[in-house]
Parts: sequence; structure tokens; C-alpha cells
Amino acid sequence: MTPVEFIMQKRNGPQHDRESFLEFFNGYITGDIPDYQMAAWLMAAFLNGLSTEEKVWLTEAVIHSGEQFDLSHIPAPKVDKHSTGGIGDKPSIVLLPLLASMGVCVPMMSGRGLGHTGGTLDKLESIPGMTVQLPKEKYIEILEKHNGVFMAQTPSIAPLDKKLYALRDVTGTVESIALITASIIGKKMTEDLDGLVLDVKYGNGAFMKTIEAARELAESLVDTASQMGVSTVALITDMNEPLGEYVGNSVEVLESIAMLKGERVESRFEHVVLSLAQEMCHAAYPEDDETDWHVKLVDQLKSGKAYEYFERIIEAQGVSAETVRALPNCLSLASECVNVTASADGYISEIDTYRIGRLMVTLKAGRMKVTDTIDPSVGLRMLVHAGAQVKEGEPVAELLVNEQIDPHEFNECFTISEKKPVFHDLIRERIA
Amino acid sequence: MTPVEFIMQKRNGPQHDRESFLEFFNGYITGDIPDYQMAAWLMAAFLNGLSTEEKVWLTEAVIHSGEQFDLSHIPAPKVDKHSTGGIGDKPSIVLLPLLASMGVCVPMMSGRGLGHTGGTLDKLESIPGMTVQLPKEKYIEILEKHNGVFMAQTPSIAPLDKKLYALRDVTGTVESIALITASIIGKKMTEDLDGLVLDVKYGNGAFMKTIEAARELAESLVDTASQMGVSTVALITDMNEPLGEYVGNSVEVLESIAMLKGERVESRFEHVVLSLAQEMCHAAYPEDDETDWHVKLVDQLKSGKAYEYFERIIEAQGVSAETVRALPNCLSLASECVNVTASADGYISEIDTYRIGRLMVTLKAGRMKVTDTIDPSVGLRMLVHAGAQVKEGEPVAELLVNEQIDPHEFNECFTISEKKPVFHDLIRERIA
Repeated sequence: MTPVEFIMQKRNGPQHDRESFLEFFNGYITGDIPDYQMAAWLMAAFLNGLSTEEKVWLTEAVIHSGEQFDLSHIPAPKVDKHSTGGIGDKPSIVLLPLLASMGVCVPMMSGRGLGHTGGTLDKLESIPGMTVQLPKEKYIEILEKHNGVFMAQTPSIAPLDKKLYALRDVTGTVESIALITASIIGKKMTEDLDGLVLDVKYGNGAFMKTIEAARELAESLVDTASQMGVSTVALITDMNEPLGEYVGNSVEVLESIAMLKGERVESRFEHVVLSLAQEMCHAAYPEDDETDWHVKLVDQLKSGKAYEYFERIIEAQGVSAETVRALPNCLSLASECVNVTASADGYISEIDTYRIGRLMVTLKAGRMKVTDTIDPSVGLRMLVHAGAQVKEGEPVAELLVNEQIDPHEFNECFTISEKKPVFHDLIRERIA
Repeated sequence: MTPVEFIMQKRNGPQHDRESFLEFFNGYITGDIPDYQMAAWLMAAFLNGLSTEEKVWLTEAVIHSGEQFDLSHIPAPKVDKHSTGGIGDKPSIVLLPLLASMGVCVPMMSGRGLGHTGGTLDKLESIPGMTVQLPKEKYIEILEKHNGVFMAQTPSIAPLDKKLYALRDVTGTVESIALITASIIGKKMTEDLDGLVLDVKYGNGAFMKTIEAARELAESLVDTASQMGVSTVALITDMNEPLGEYVGNSVEVLESIAMLKGERVESRFEHVVLSLAQEMCHAAYPEDDETDWHVKLVDQLKSGKAYEYFERIIEAQGVSAETVRALPNCLSLASECVNVTASADGYISEIDTYRIGRLMVTLKAGRMKVTDTIDPSVGLRMLVHAGAQVKEGEPVAELLVNEQIDPHEFNECFTISEKKPVFHDLIRERIA
């Protein structure tokens, strides 16, 4: 089959066969298939979709395009979590040491912030000395010793995904459920996992704006990963307001440390972390139907065991013992506080979470371009939830900044209504 | 609007606006829009279609990408004909001098053979000395003097169409009604026409296999050209068997000359030529509802006037007076004759016209690659029509070749049935 015949097959609808599918994608990796032919195929795939089998083949092509982890010598069950991203989205920082303390191996590969969302790696780097970019052998060594490591994706992992994403970005083919599925699952499957838990966000601060779109993505992700033999569950969670009390880098680490130490934290954040953690426990210990994972997890937090693992892991990743002892006070925090205020009396009916994310980027809490630098010290503290009753001029959030700024654009992110609005549950659905 | 936003607009369905449409295509001409972005747009346009307005804009972009003819100083009405191509498709050779003899200016730009179809320019070049590639000024000079000229498309005419076609060819986006429309009408509109008559072929030897597809293309072509202010009519004609008695190059010129001299020719060929010619007369003289164009056209042929114009025009295009006098005997014809025979007793229920075209290419009557050379002397003479009753072993066609060949593949192109098949009219529909 020629490349043109392959493109026409997707254009006309019928399913590809495995052999010609892999041939086309291998040709793209070697450069025999030029960008313009892949661009035509991507648009045809965007509009006509991919079958479950085709998603599995594309995922396989992504995995096999680069290096993979082989963790077969580690006896612990290997489970990871992936979030589709949002504002204040920090569960990974808690989940990794928490699950590690439960005997689960978590080879977690995270990303950096781009666009309106922050990135776990950027947040962690607000801890002085923290190094997320390590040689593969070092990652494996830390995993062997401490059950968890915060990893960055190296250029040798899933290079096909990088090449495809760069092309999708310039050809209007990013928001395809099928292509997103292969990208996410392909990268995660290089970690040699037994189980995967997905946090699929929906709402105005998420990539998927509607519950329907989030459900479609969650089903596609679970379906594809399960077909590849990895036990996978997705929770669809609300992103119509930031998750937790804080948005930023230092402040999100601060909040995560508080939770890891068993301190009282914002309830939505705690709920999402514990729900995801329970799913990870179920994936790690599928035979165990006696343990009350919620009780056990809370105990790991209250007893300080989870925080102990956090300390060990970040020390193994370059943070000095002195810094570890000085946490969280050694985190850099901006000195000025600016109030974000309600524009009227009433109820907060909507929080423009996407816009909050974009505004935080302008304060350097995130980046628009890969080459932008981040100021870890700036942050936003949410004082209310969507639905809260407020008075005009009352603070609804606080900005932590290095110089006084006009907060009116932040004020505009909070819509006030006269009637008390009704909201959905934080965790909308579970897809398995 | 960024190029990516433009691509996403077509991907999502809503109509483009004129300004951003022309910006995108101008960007492609200058090289600012790379092939991979155009490839993604082409596939989106293939699958989601173009509106009438978008087809007009694309046609305008094609026209304005290069040089155009300005024939406003020629008082005669300017009318051309375009065929979507088939086997034995030679009406242009007759129509141009015939209409010229009626006082109609025919600035006819034709193509070369590629794939299974022949090309008018290749056929004409079987006349010794005939030159179809001339400077624009020379074309205009011949038009001024003789009302007609056989032109080749120069690189400066519609370069956007060439660039787009080359990309469509390698991205599986050729067979799009919308894109074909802009390509055909765009090229024709550079000729500064008052009227255009389209011969849209359907059937197994045509680009459009079904009457439905042909009708869709015809409607799109008529619609777009009419929107641009050019009076346009399409005839949908049958291409389930070769048109006329002969397929090849010298042989098709031979057949055309016979018709131009008023001699008796194969009836289907004559019918198509006269029907197209009448439409061209209507387009040229829309006010004249008295003349019986059929009678007048036949008279131009019988009286030798049409052939006189043919002689003048080809002489102006490089053919010597001596060669003109020696026509048609000076045409090079292959010396061997091989019979194509019926494989059984019965009726010819189907003629695989596409395959006949492909087989003629293997005999060098056409070309697979642009760089292939043509042997003008080979040809096929049809002895029967679809529906004819035949006996096993009876000749159904004759091959004119330079060496004896095994005709069994040609034999296979004629399917024989026991029952007498029923066929549609040669001219199926008229779309205006």
C-alpha cells in the first residue's frame, strides 16, 4: 500500500490493517513520510476517528519509537496517575510519596506548564536543589530505593509523540480524542506499569469543557490502556474552579506538604487526592478486598509516613538535608498581597478558571512559550468556592505578587448572580 | 486569523470569510504557508466541502496567481469548451476550427495525456511541425487572425493550481468536487471568456464513474463559473465506451479531419461534437434565437469552411503548407493490424474503457509519467458498440501496432452476455 492509498483509506472511512499502519508511522519516524502526508492523514483521522485497534497500534508506535523502562526486577506493583490538566492541579505531588509509603512503585513522568495550566515539574523545582532531569539509571535507582521518583520526559522517550504533537499543533489537529489517547497512553506505557489511574478534568479550566467530551476522552483512554493489558480507571473531576486553595508554584508545594504532613487542607483538594489514591491502591492490590484504603491512606498521612517518603525522594533528587529540614519555610514566596474582590452582592455563579490560568501566566506563574522562565514565588489564594455568598468589595481571592498590581482582570473572573447556583459533584463519574 | 485558526475553521464546518481565505492562499503562493498546513486544510476541505462562495474565492485565487489573457480588443464572442476527459475524446480538435469558422473566438487551452486518458496536445503533435507551445503574444496574434488557437498551459498560467495539484496528488485529496471545480474553472477563466461549455463524462472510462458523481461535478462547475459572470452549460456524456471509432493520436486526428471535411464519421462522436458546438453557438450568440445552429454547423463542415479554418490555424502553429496539403496521408500510422476478438457468442454488455485506456498507454499511445514519450502511430479502431451482437472469435476492434502483440488483455475488456443489455442515451443530461 502506498502512503497516498493509506491516507485515502482513512479519508474514506474503512479501518487500516496493522501492517500498513505501522509501516506508515515507521516511515514518518525515519523521515520517508513527509510532514504534508502525515498532516493530511491527521486531519482525516481527526474527522473520521480511529477504531479501538487503530488507537492501540498508534499507541504501540508511540511507545516503540523510543526508550522504555524495564522495571520487571522491582517486585512492587507499578501504578501511575495521569491528569489531563487544570488550574491548581497538584495531586501528583502528594500521591507519589503517599503511594510509595504504601509499598506501591510510582514511576511518575510529569510535564511542565504550558498555556493556561501549570506543570508538576515546575512546581517541584520551587524547592531549592530539586532536580527532575536525571539519567534513566538514576531514576531506576531511586525507584528501587524509595518506590517513587519525579521524572521528566527525556527526548529518548516516545519521540514519535513529540514529532506528531509538533505537527498537530500547527495543523489544527490537537483536539482529537483518538490522537490525544495515543499520546497520553503511549507516554505512560513506557513506564512499564501494572495499573494506571486517570484524572480526566472537565469544565471551563480544563481541556475538555463539557462532561460529554470528558466522558468520551475517559472512555477512549480506559479502553485503549485496558486493551494493552494495563488495569486502568478514570475519574472525571470538576475543573470549573481551581483545585485546592492555591494556584502557583511554591504555594502549591506548600499546600501539598501540608497534606503530606496530615494537616488540614482545602476539602476539594483532599477529596480528589484521596479518591485517586484509593483507585491506585485498588490497581496495585486488586486481590485485597479487605483493607479500607481510605482509612489506611489517612493514617499514612496523619502518622507522617507519607511525608517521610516525600523527604527521602526529594533528597535523592538533589535537595539538601538542610533544605528538607527547612521546608516549607525555605520556599520563596512573593511579599505583596493584592485582594481580588467581588463586583456585587450575590452568589459566585461562575469562576472563569481558564482566564485565571492565563492571568497567572502573565504574572509568570506559568509560561506561554517553552522558553519562558517561571517565577515560583507568585501565587493566588482562593478564599471562596463557586456558589459562595459574597458582598460587593469582599475579597474572594488574594494574589501573592512581588509588586502591587491592578487586580480588575482577576475580579472579572468571578461572576456574581442573585440566585444561588447549583453545582455538580466534584467527582462526576468513574469510568472503568 | 492565524493559519491554524483558518484550518480549524474548515475542520469545524463554518464558512471562511473572504479576507482570511485569500490571505491563506496568498500565503501558500509566497511560501509563508507550508505544505503541511495546506495539506491539513485540503483534507478538511475534502471531507467538509466548500461553499459556493469559497469555490469562487479559490477559483479567483487560482486565476490571479499568474498571467491572464486580455482579449477585450477582439470583438468576437469568446467561448471555450472543457472536457473532464476520457478515451477517444477528441471533440476539441473539431470544435475549435468549426466554431472559429462561425465567427466565435476560441482561445482553447488543452492538456497532455496522463494516466488512462489521452491529451489533445499530444494528438495534435502527431501532425508534423505542429507547435502548441508558443509565446502568449503569438497565441493572441493567431486568435486575432484566425479566431482560434490550440494552446498549452504555460508555467505562468495559474501556478497556484499546479502547486495545489502536486500536493493533492500526494495527500489523497484529488477527487474532491470542490477542489476539482476551482482547478478547472480557475484555469479556463484565465482565457478571458464570455461563455464556457463543459463536457462532463461519466462511466467506467471517466474520472466520474457514476451519473450522480458526474451530475454533482457538473452542477458545481456550472454554479461556480456562472457566479463568476461567465455563461456556462454542461452536458453529461457517456464514457462507458471510447468516443468515436479511434483511440490513439494520429488516428484521432485522422478521424477529426474526416469530420472537419464533412465526411461520414462514427455517429456517437458526431453527436457529441455537434451537441457541444450548438451549446457553444448559444453561448456565443445568446440573442440569436432564429438560426438553426445544427443546420448551420453541418453546413460549415460540408462546405469545407471548417476545414479551411483548421488548415489556417495549424499552418499558423508551425505546420508547413506542404504538410497541410498532404494531410491526412502524412500522419504516421503503425503498419501491423491485430484483431481484438469476442470471447463468446452474445451481446457486448460492458466495455472496460478504463482498462482500454491503460492498455493503450502500455502501447505508448499515452503516458504514465509526465516524462514518458508517445508513439503517435499506434491506435485502436473500434468495430462495434456496447450492445452489439457478436459471435465468438469475431473481431470487435483492431489494434494498429508496430509489431505483432498478444491481444488477450484487450479481448478481456469486452464482456459478453447472453441477454441484450440496455444502455442510456449518449448525452444524459444538460445542466445550466
